[in-house]
Amino acid sequence: MTVNSGRAVFLTEYPDGLPKPGSFVVREVDIPHLKESEVLLRTKWMSVDPYMRGRMNPNVKSYVPPFTLDAPLDGGAVSEVVESRAIEFNPGDHVVSMQGGWKEYSIAKPRALTKVEPDQAPLSSYLGVLGMPGMTAWAGLTQILEPKGGETLFVSGAGGAVGSLVCQLGKQMGLRVIGSAGSAQKCSWLKQTIGCDIAINYKDYPSASELSNALAEAAPDGIHCYFENVGGDHLQAALQNIAIGGRIALCGLIAQYNAQEPVTGPTNLANLITRSVKVQGFIVAQYAHLRKQFLGSVAPLLESGDISAREEIYEGLDQAGAAFLGLFSGENTGKALVRMAG
Amino acid sequence: MTVNSGRAVFLTEYPDGLPKPGSFVVREVDIPHLKESEVLLRTKWMSVDPYMRGRMNPNVKSYVPPFTLDAPLDGGAVSEVVESRAIEFNPGDHVVSMQGGWKEYSIAKPRALTKVEPDQAPLSSYLGVLGMPGMTAWAGLTQILEPKGGETLFVSGAGGAVGSLVCQLGKQMGLRVIGSAGSAQKCSWLKQTIGCDIAINYKDYPSASELSNALAEAAPDGIHCYFENVGGDHLQAALQNIAIGGRIALCGLIAQYNAQEPVTGPTNLANLITRSVKVQGFIVAQYAHLRKQFLGSVAPLLESGDISAREEIYEGLDQAGAAFLGLFSGENTGKALVRMAG
Repeated sequence: MTVNSGRAVFLTEYPDGLPKPGSFVVREVDIPHLKESEVLLRTKWMSVDPYMRGRMNPNVKSYVPPFTLDAPLDGGAVSEVVESRAIEFNPGDHVVSMQGGWKEYSIAKPRALTKVEPDQAPLSSYLGVLGMPGMTAWAGLTQILEPKGGETLFVSGAGGAVGSLVCQLGKQMGLRVIGSAGSAQKCSWLKQTIGCDIAINYKDYPSASELSNALAEAAPDGIHCYFENVGGDHLQAALQNIAIGGRIALCGLIAQYNAQEPVTGPTNLANLITRSVKVQGFIVAQYAHLRKQFLGSVAPLLESGDISAREEIYEGLDQAGAAFLGLFSGENTGKALVRMAG
Repeated sequence: MTVNSGRAVFLTEYPDGLPKPGSFVVREVDIPHLKESEVLLRTKWMSVDPYMRGRMNPNVKSYVPPFTLDAPLDGGAVSEVVESRAIEFNPGDHVVSMQGGWKEYSIAKPRALTKVEPDQAPLSSYLGVLGMPGMTAWAGLTQILEPKGGETLFVSGAGGAVGSLVCQLGKQMGLRVIGSAGSAQKCSWLKQTIGCDIAINYKDYPSASELSNALAEAAPDGIHCYFENVGGDHLQAALQNIAIGGRIALCGLIAQYNAQEPVTGPTNLANLITRSVKVQGFIVAQYAHLRKQFLGSVAPLLESGDISAREEIYEGLDQAGAAFLGLFSGENTGKALVRMAG
């Protein structure tokens, strides 16, 4: 198969605040010939994730460098090998990479690819429950929060790809699970499908003190473990209700990713001291060495139907920007994905 | 010896903001007769510590309950046993307790007392470098920050009892140590006596961004370990310069203990995520089981003169309120203590 060019998404500007649909543009780019030990990939599924917003700020010090405006964006993807000059892969193989996203075709080295089997789990699940968001949920819960049976776990952004898996794994571990999300519809899904003991629609509590009161009622013995995806009022309210010896896995602060003015932190940080609380910020790459352990725990639960993984699917590369923006509007439930044409 | 009454300090009100000198009043209280297995103690040294401000708020959820207005205040003290109905102690013994502070006499059970030897170290050191502040410094550094040789340690409130020991232990561990304090005088003490590589007079940098720039210059490779006693601009500036994989021991937030309005947290909490930072709030009581290990590490360093412990001594119980208020005015250097008359 010979491919000379393919379409790819570029960022036209570093957004100030919420990116605009026009911040994303699809362009045709040349595909060079393969060199020795390279493979050519055709993207089948691509992932949009909140962390990508951080890469759209030009001056962030992080494990992951900022996007440039001069090249297609990168991101997680499941791709099919269409041509191979590497002995490790053959045409027809399926792989996960962190490069294949936001484009139709990509060229990769074998060490950047993980082979996946289409008959073991749906290909899209390797970008969700069996992929980076799933690993994030599992690592934050098991490696940072280290919950003990009977404890109370609070999960913000519980309707998302990461949060909904944290809730389900928390139930598997014998925890009392409180999830928050931004609509009544998501809350009933959290209770009926995900298994949350209590689901809080945070839009019913428009201030930190109201949200805090709702949490106090939901967690009369305090929150032992908090999986934080949101920030803002959620963090303030959770700190107000954190138990002595509590642990917080700081995964995301989506409430402030698009802020144009600095967002002040909670006023009750002193509770971290008086209640001996740990806060651990993390990105999933730190736990890459535990991937097998993660898959060994979560894949059987997915196969047996003990956990469910909902997907919000957008069709075609032209929808990639819209899929990304949907992460911040509260429209998505579960894992947001783009299915590529063809 | 028969003692019928003694003087003790009461809190007259729960202060709103900085306590006033009149918030503390000395009253004569009756000393009841000893019951079986009790001892009567005469206080020789009492401690004033920043954490006591937290106990002056009536509604704080913590390991340590708030003070009441109906009884003498409590606090750390070195006392002499003057009468004993317990087989564990004889008159003339010296003990440390958490009850003997703020009063001339106290009655205690043996289990609340730790015997100390006046010929092994100065009695006052059991309230400072060999006592609770010393243990706080040692535990935060060794149990939370877990520094590796060559890393950069930043200590706020470095002129205080805890901070100055953290700096010295940090140097013993082969770290590059940056301390901040609120006067040029303290800063030269930090460099000349305590051994800080860099001492920052934070009053020269009256905003978080100025302090952050000073830290960036002092720690070009970032701050690997931060021992936080202060909060406010210090926390914001430290988070701006924290290294990837950094650790923060959250010991105190003295900048906000007397605030009358809620003090907002830092605007750059997202750095905790992108740089995979741990924040652990703690109080020293969690580490009580490690007291022997702490003494085994620190007492020899004190005896050999490898670390120095400066004291700010106030004379007499009538000065106890002033000694406490001195913690917040920046007047004290090293451990603040009250020497009791007699």
